[in-house]
Amino acid sequence: MLFYDHTTLQTDITDLAQQSASFAPEVIIAIARGGLIPAALLAYALDVRRIECVSVEGYDDTLMRDTLTLRDPTDLHDITRILIIDDIVDSGRTLQKIVAHFALRYPQATIKTAALFYKPTALMLPDFTCNEATEWIDFFWEGRSL
Amino acid sequence: MLFYDHTTLQTDITDLAQQSASFAPEVIIAIARGGLIPAALLAYALDVRRIECVSVEGYDDTLMRDTLTLRDPTDLHDITRILIIDDIVDSGRTLQKIVAHFALRYPQATIKTAALFYKPTALMLPDFTCNEATEWIDFFWEGRSL
Repeated sequence: MLFYDHTTLQTDITDLAQQSASFAPEVIIAIARGGLIPAALLAYALDVRRIECVSVEGYDDTLMRDTLTLRDPTDLHDITRILIIDDIVDSGRTLQKIVAHFALRYPQATIKTAALFYKPTALMLPDFTCNEATEWIDFFWEGRSL
Repeated sequence: MLFYDHTTLQTDITDLAQQSASFAPEVIIAIARGGLIPAALLAYALDVRRIECVSVEGYDDTLMRDTLTLRDPTDLHDITRILIIDDIVDSGRTLQKIVAHFALRYPQATIKTAALFYKPTALMLPDFTCNEATEWIDFFWEGRSL
């Protein structure tokens, strides 16, 4: 198991910012909850003021269930460059579903994706990413509870 | 100027989690962008799965402008306990506006607020908070840019 700490996150965010700077997203979409902290840091790094959250419910990526319900409160009809970010792209099903949904809903936009970690076997790989996931990752934000 | 680092944030999130645990929010609303990282960490600490973002635009808290446009994509008609979080409550105008908006839109819900820092002179003080702001605060997430 790899413990993913705050210092490594800062380094990876700088890396993701450099990779995605030329794309210049107008909005960053965080996939809750794992994508929230990377999204916030990347938004500051790229000076993107607009951040929105989507989430997937009734779904456990490790169980590969067929039902995946997306909560998407966004209204991005005026946007042409959307960056969607998550902490890890594992099976890739979540990311694929969200990208397909956004592509259908916002045909005027170019959609790119980012993640701190990816598995090479994922159905869909992020455009911008930092690390191959070779073991279970324990993100520092997941370790906190009362 | 106070540099607010990651270690202090972790301590404050534990504090906010202890203060707000008995309220048991069903959803945490992050005021973007400053509230995003506190919201995400608090959501993990309280095991709250639902996080949404609101933002205020065309507004600079230091200029005390009269026009404050709220972007609120939420649909919380099924929710009874809402926790709204920001990094700092300065003049309190942003928080007051957002709480008034939510109270009108979601009359079925109890709304509580949280912030890492507050100024005693604010129009509205957060229900759960950690530190009085006695100087300018440089949050670590604001320092990041390419």
